Amino acid sequence: MTSITRRYSFSASHRLHSAELSSAENTRLFGKCNNPFGHGHDYVLEVTVAGDPDVVSGLIVPISWLDELVADKILRPFRNRYINLDVAQFANLVPTTENVTQVAADLLGRDWREYIGEGMARLEKVRIEETGRNSCEIYV
Amino acid sequence: MTSITRRYSFSASHRLHSAELSSAENTRLFGKCNNPFGHGHDYVLEVTVAGDPDVVSGLIVPISWLDELVADKILRPFRNRYINLDVAQFANLVPTTENVTQVAADLLGRDWREYIGEGMARLEKVRIEETGRNSCEIYV
Amino acid sequence: MTSITRRYSFSASHRLHSAELSSAENTRLFGKCNNPFGHGHDYVLEVTVAGDPDVVSGLIVPISWLDELVADKILRPFRNRYINLDVAQFANLVPTTENVTQVAADLLGRDWREYIGEGMARLEKVRIEETGRNSCEIYV
Amino acid sequence: MTSITRRYSFSASHRLHSAELSSAENTRLFGKCNNPFGHGHDYVLEVTVAGDPDVVSGLIVPISWLDELVADKILRPFRNRYINLDVAQFANLVPTTENVTQVAADLLGRDWREYIGEGMARLEKVRIEETGRNSCEIYV
Amino acid sequence: MTSITRRYSFSASHRLHSAELSSAENTRLFGKCNNPFGHGHDYVLEVTVAGDPDVVSGLIVPISWLDELVADKILRPFRNRYINLDVAQFANLVPTTENVTQVAADLLGRDWREYIGEGMARLEKVRIEETGRNSCEIYV
Amino acid sequence: MTSITRRYSFSASHRLHSAELSSAENTRLFGKCNNPFGHGHDYVLEVTVAGDPDVVSGLIVPISWLDELVADKILRPFRNRYINLDVAQFANLVPTTENVTQVAADLLGRDWREYIGEGMARLEKVRIEETGRNSCEIYV
Repeated sequence: MTSITRRYSFSASHRLHSAELSSAENTRLFGKCNNPFGHGHDYVLEVTVAGDPDVVSGLIVPISWLDELVADKILRPFRNRYINLDVAQFANLVPTTENVTQVAADLLGRDWREYIGEGMARLEKVRIEETGRNSCEIYV
Repeated sequence: MTSITRRYSFSASHRLHSAELSSAENTRLFGKCNNPFGHGHDYVLEVTVAGDPDVVSGLIVPISWLDELVADKILRPFRNRYINLDVAQFANLVPTTENVTQVAADLLGRDWREYIGEGMARLEKVRIEETGRNSCEIYV
Repeated sequence: MTSITRRYSFSASHRLHSAELSSAENTRLFGKCNNPFGHGHDYVLEVTVAGDPDVVSGLIVPISWLDELVADKILRPFRNRYINLDVAQFANLVPTTENVTQVAADLLGRDWREYIGEGMARLEKVRIEETGRNSCEIYV
Repeated sequence: MTSITRRYSFSASHRLHSAELSSAENTRLFGKCNNPFGHGHDYVLEVTVAGDPDVVSGLIVPISWLDELVADKILRPFRNRYINLDVAQFANLVPTTENVTQVAADLLGRDWREYIGEGMARLEKVRIEETGRNSCEIYV
Repeated sequence: MTSITRRYSFSASHRLHSAELSSAENTRLFGKCNNPFGHGHDYVLEVTVAGDPDVVSGLIVPISWLDELVADKILRPFRNRYINLDVAQFANLVPTTENVTQVAADLLGRDWREYIGEGMARLEKVRIEETGRNSCEIYV
Repeated sequence: MTSITRRYSFSASHRLHSAELSSAENTRLFGKCNNPFGHGHDYVLEVTVAGDPDVVSGLIVPISWLDELVADKILRPFRNRYINLDVAQFANLVPTTENVTQVAADLLGRDWREYIGEGMARLEKVRIEETGRNSCEIYV
């Protein structure tokens, strides 16, 4: 099985806080990440595409097509934003690495065919590094 | 499938030497890593936990629970130690990357439920980088 | 000349915005970094201490003394905070990398003697990486 | 399942161009990577070997055996070379990351037994980073 | 003294060869870097600007001004190019890291005032990493 | 002023302990780095050479000459060694980063002319990273 992975980055801020939890519970689960005004990260996003390279071009997918999808669906909405207030999907969703990765995977998967075409290239994995010490990956 | 990975580090030293092998055999297998007084590395430990994020908190596991397990079972016993003499498991076991990773996986797995609880989060993978050029990973 | 450099990190968020500038001017100077709810970074802080190593210990300064100073003056106030609202010095100061570095250098210098003692070790340089692409350094 | 991964690097240059495609098509697919005189990268090669560590030595495979295979089959032919003209396999094959990884996997697999022996260690994965932003991996 | 450093990257290829030297001398000085068809690197360019931050904006220089200068003078001419044949300055100049850095410093310095304005921000240092193991820096 | 920097690495172990200090004092100054059997690091060594590039070759110094000096004087004696017992200079010298850097600078400087020749290239700086968090640099 062959796959390519492309790495992107964006800076954003977030606050880990659930309105459904008590203040004590929020502190217990999220620690200093529950601070009221939020804090930020330099997120790294890795998108893995599996498939058979085209016999003529040697490409699983032209990189510019993937770049365009990622720019439209992830980089423009998230870059330099406060995720809790600026990204609609997080109105009632805590922006943990797990949830940010899931939302990114959903956003990329939803319009995959429109950007990547009817070929065999498929979205295999989405991985987000929140910091060099924390990451989440989802096989889609 | 969703997983999170958390990255830790500790400095330690080791010597690759088996009392069951001849001197020539030790040199052939381990080269300069067989030098009598040992040498050291800045080990990186990555622990991967798979599971479904909690619908309220958005977390597979609260990071502080995982940090506590790793600090108790790995970082305190190994950090700034000479693995061959300071860590009991290596009294008769060569501290190759493979064996250090296996011992780490065993140590984390043994007390997993006590630290992480009865939820669905499970230890999926343990990976150790001995240097930027060598690593070992074990799916548990 | 001999110096040691110690590297720390903290996640925080900020907004680049000056109340003394028009909205158009803020946008022209700061671009998307002017977004109203802020965004964040994984800041890296490097502190460089110059001096002569002690002939007995071989140290310019015991690392734990420096770590304590940096934890008290920088890491605790900044880590997981929204710099504009959580750190008093930025009430009327735009938290550009330049200004964050200057404030950090001032905070470390002010209590230097209390933490580091009357020896010859002196604060030489403070450097902050906002992202892997941007940094600021100040020779103090 | 246990595996070790060893990381190597080599600098090389390439041009993404297919003689079977029109000039417009080459530009559309490869962009600036189609520039006539080629351009270069600091390639990173990761070779993953799976198996059971030997009970005496604690090794899946002696690293020097793997290093010798990789030096003979990959590093010597590719290092400081223009892949399109210097490496025979690319006479009629576009040196995309996908194709370079496939050729590397084939070269390592073909002589695996001769270098690594009749033991249980098997070539599991070959991964090439063309830049920090692009990589390809093949499970063999 | 305060300075900011901005980091850019571009992939390119080169050949280390001087027409004024014998073949033996070229090999002695440049080793495999003298291979006839060239090889490549992922160059990193760091540009350091010294000055006093503006009291209102907190900036030594708006980053977008610097980015525009670097894009026009360095990234567009060098990115995805074979330096020996594609960049006019190297028609009779060996593209060693030293010479590439000097040419970059000259190119940035020549149009500095036009892009950066009549303020106090001055080009202090240009640094190029050819690989993670080799770099050159020039204080201008 | 132009300089090149070359980066090397070696794994080694050490123990921070001075026979001239009490046990309590050793613990106070060196903490866990005083553990009796030592611990290790993946040291990075950077050697900076200043000078004017040769007008024909474009080099401050042929890299292979520098590599040979560093291999003979630093890499062979230190790599995979326990510095306290294996490197003569540390018989009565605590192997702090400061002292390791000073010894390295002395070793490189002593035979500089023999390896690098009578040209203008001079050893400007030696820098050692003990870990990603600690480094020492000496301007010679």
